[in-house]
Amino acid sequence: MFDEMMETLNRERLRNLQLSRLRNLIDRLLVSPNDRPRLRSLGLTSGEDVDLNTLKRLPFTTKDDVVDRYQVAETLVDEIVEWHGSSGTGGRETLIPYTRRDIKTWGALCARLLVSAGISEKSIVANAYGYGLFTGGLGYHYGLGCVGASVVPLGLGPMARLVRLMRDMQIDTLACTPTYASRILEYLKVTGMDPRESMNLCVGVFGAETFSEEMRGALETGLGLCAFDLYGLSEVTGPGVAGECRERAGLHVNEDHFLLEVIDPTTGKECADGVTGEVVLTTLSKEAKPVLRYRTGDLASVSHHLCPCRRTFARISRIQGRLDDMVIINGVNIFPRDIEEVVFASPHLSGEFIVVLSEHGSRAVVACESAGMDREARYEVEAALAARLGIAVRAATIPQGSLERGDMKRGRRVITAGTPEASSLLNQLEL
Amino acid sequence: MFDEMMETLNRERLRNLQLSRLRNLIDRLLVSPNDRPRLRSLGLTSGEDVDLNTLKRLPFTTKDDVVDRYQVAETLVDEIVEWHGSSGTGGRETLIPYTRRDIKTWGALCARLLVSAGISEKSIVANAYGYGLFTGGLGYHYGLGCVGASVVPLGLGPMARLVRLMRDMQIDTLACTPTYASRILEYLKVTGMDPRESMNLCVGVFGAETFSEEMRGALETGLGLCAFDLYGLSEVTGPGVAGECRERAGLHVNEDHFLLEVIDPTTGKECADGVTGEVVLTTLSKEAKPVLRYRTGDLASVSHHLCPCRRTFARISRIQGRLDDMVIINGVNIFPRDIEEVVFASPHLSGEFIVVLSEHGSRAVVACESAGMDREARYEVEAALAARLGIAVRAATIPQGSLERGDMKRGRRVITAGTPEASSLLNQLEL
Repeated sequence: MFDEMMETLNRERLRNLQLSRLRNLIDRLLVSPNDRPRLRSLGLTSGEDVDLNTLKRLPFTTKDDVVDRYQVAETLVDEIVEWHGSSGTGGRETLIPYTRRDIKTWGALCARLLVSAGISEKSIVANAYGYGLFTGGLGYHYGLGCVGASVVPLGLGPMARLVRLMRDMQIDTLACTPTYASRILEYLKVTGMDPRESMNLCVGVFGAETFSEEMRGALETGLGLCAFDLYGLSEVTGPGVAGECRERAGLHVNEDHFLLEVIDPTTGKECADGVTGEVVLTTLSKEAKPVLRYRTGDLASVSHHLCPCRRTFARISRIQGRLDDMVIINGVNIFPRDIEEVVFASPHLSGEFIVVLSEHGSRAVVACESAGMDREARYEVEAALAARLGIAVRAATIPQGSLERGDMKRGRRVITAGTPEASSLLNQLEL
Repeated sequence: MFDEMMETLNRERLRNLQLSRLRNLIDRLLVSPNDRPRLRSLGLTSGEDVDLNTLKRLPFTTKDDVVDRYQVAETLVDEIVEWHGSSGTGGRETLIPYTRRDIKTWGALCARLLVSAGISEKSIVANAYGYGLFTGGLGYHYGLGCVGASVVPLGLGPMARLVRLMRDMQIDTLACTPTYASRILEYLKVTGMDPRESMNLCVGVFGAETFSEEMRGALETGLGLCAFDLYGLSEVTGPGVAGECRERAGLHVNEDHFLLEVIDPTTGKECADGVTGEVVLTTLSKEAKPVLRYRTGDLASVSHHLCPCRRTFARISRIQGRLDDMVIINGVNIFPRDIEEVVFASPHLSGEFIVVLSEHGSRAVVACESAGMDREARYEVEAALAARLGIAVRAATIPQGSLERGDMKRGRRVITAGTPEASSLLNQLEL
């Protein structure tokens, strides 16, 4: 373990630490011009007015609250040493400031998760997360720096270079988004290279996106490594929030720095262990732009069962989907990830797909890339989708390479019929 | 100053420090399987066998010596925490390893130069050097971290985002290659934005490439900032080797970490102060892959005059050109930078140009991008080139935007007639 003392802290001491950090956070928010009015209106005058139970009466923070982008508590402006942000879907990015201590904490929290996945100071790591404003590249970079591993900071450079260096330098660890790992796999297939023969990959740390167990299986088999899921988001520091240990039975949340809640997204009430709801996080130590009860939009369940790895931090299940990714097909809630499971399991498909939803959501076609799948195989996929989703969904194939490949993260996976994008795609379908 | 004690060290104490570090370097090279044979054959058995004068009898290191890429002293393999490298012109990059202490030293040396250019913990900096394997992005990032400035790690992201953030965040410092700064200027002209009205830029730190005083002037006027030249190269750590102080009369070399020589590239003899020759550097503190008398290929002169800024480190002139960039036109040695001076001074030209050299080097055409220059203006440029270069050179114009813009560094600026590249260009010339 990277920080055994904290990672195995008993529950009572952890709760005490959380409470003291929460009170400190409330004190800091009470002097921030942005947050004071809201908190004062609830009768709060100091951190002493809250405990871990009354927390549940405090207001949530949403993405929109975080987006008034350049606002930072005046007192901190001089202490900011770095800005990061998500690329943002609506054109404008969410920018998050960090103090020197925030950067230090961030590195240490990422380091815990990397060590937890088996990375050590002996590892040689290709960091193929995008470096720059995106939290992926530098977040993992800082974490690997804390571990003392040897980092090759490749970013999103040319794929040929990445693959050549992985082979020549006998790189043993790959850090990137699952989408990028999938592109690497595709590149290897096209160039006819078998990584299990020429490379030395052992561990993959894949984050910044959800991915199904089927995709994990495909990446593990194809790249010859053991894949670990890591979780984090820009609004809550970036990577470093939670990650899988060797047990790979849920992701341990760094609870000494992030207060975890899982709530029913409709009622806002806390979910019991094992019940899927929206992940809500409070940053307990972040100095610049901390968040109180941030609604992540990510769906998961929580488990407080003690893990065989001895870490006492609660675990969240792998993220089941995002609230805003959910599509309703004929009245049934479907996540693109459910479809990914089926598509990745088929040996006839590349793994890339897009869902074309009818205008009123009554029907859907899952257009899958294939190097040439016959009709019977398509029926197989349709049957598997029906079994997985509980509704009948049409499958169709499009030629391999038809769908655009983003460099960093997966693009939209659901489009609506009637749009120009959908029309151009429908023309290609081998229905 | 960032490190006043070292930056104002008197010459005698500096020489003593250099000697002790040089001896330590020789000791370390004597246990490296790569370097031992060469040094033993000169009769060296320990660092005590050398002093700063006998150094001149030791062998040079060239780029080819550094390129046996993945070789590192065995004893250090476990201590490497990072790899960097130049993108490499021949397809394969030169990879340079760093120990934890190397990274720390690198940051502090960059910090000296950044503080020297007026950057402080109050600065808010757009770092638009490419992040990743290239030493520019992370080198400046580490330096800015040591200074405590507020960094926006933009890398080579979209230009529109960079410009929007420079305006919205009132960024006061721009760090990038001069080529990239030139692209920004071009973008601002196209979009009709005047940075002196809407932005708050004060300082530009431009490195990784040479640029003329004329280009500096154009960037300063166009972007409304004061531009500083910084110097470094991957084989010798990266940025952090030398930089201009507020006097802007040469670049102070961090002589406590880099031993400077300027030699006649033909005879290998040391040049007197003020005489242009090839810069040769020895890394005095680098742990992983140090270099002894590395021939940089960069041409400059040295000055030991005391600078009014009180820094005692010797200064090199701005780099006059690269040995391998030099072209011989009709028997006269010409550097692309000499041409840049003339092209940047013309109000009719975009600043982008390429030299098409006749097959036997007897004639040259300088093809300049122009939004529409009349014949007389072209004659003016020809006259200016003749005055600057001492030989008659033909000028021609090509439409604005014809020449490829690299993201990171300037591409080749000289091509030879008869090649397909030259033919396609010659077809566009308005001769």
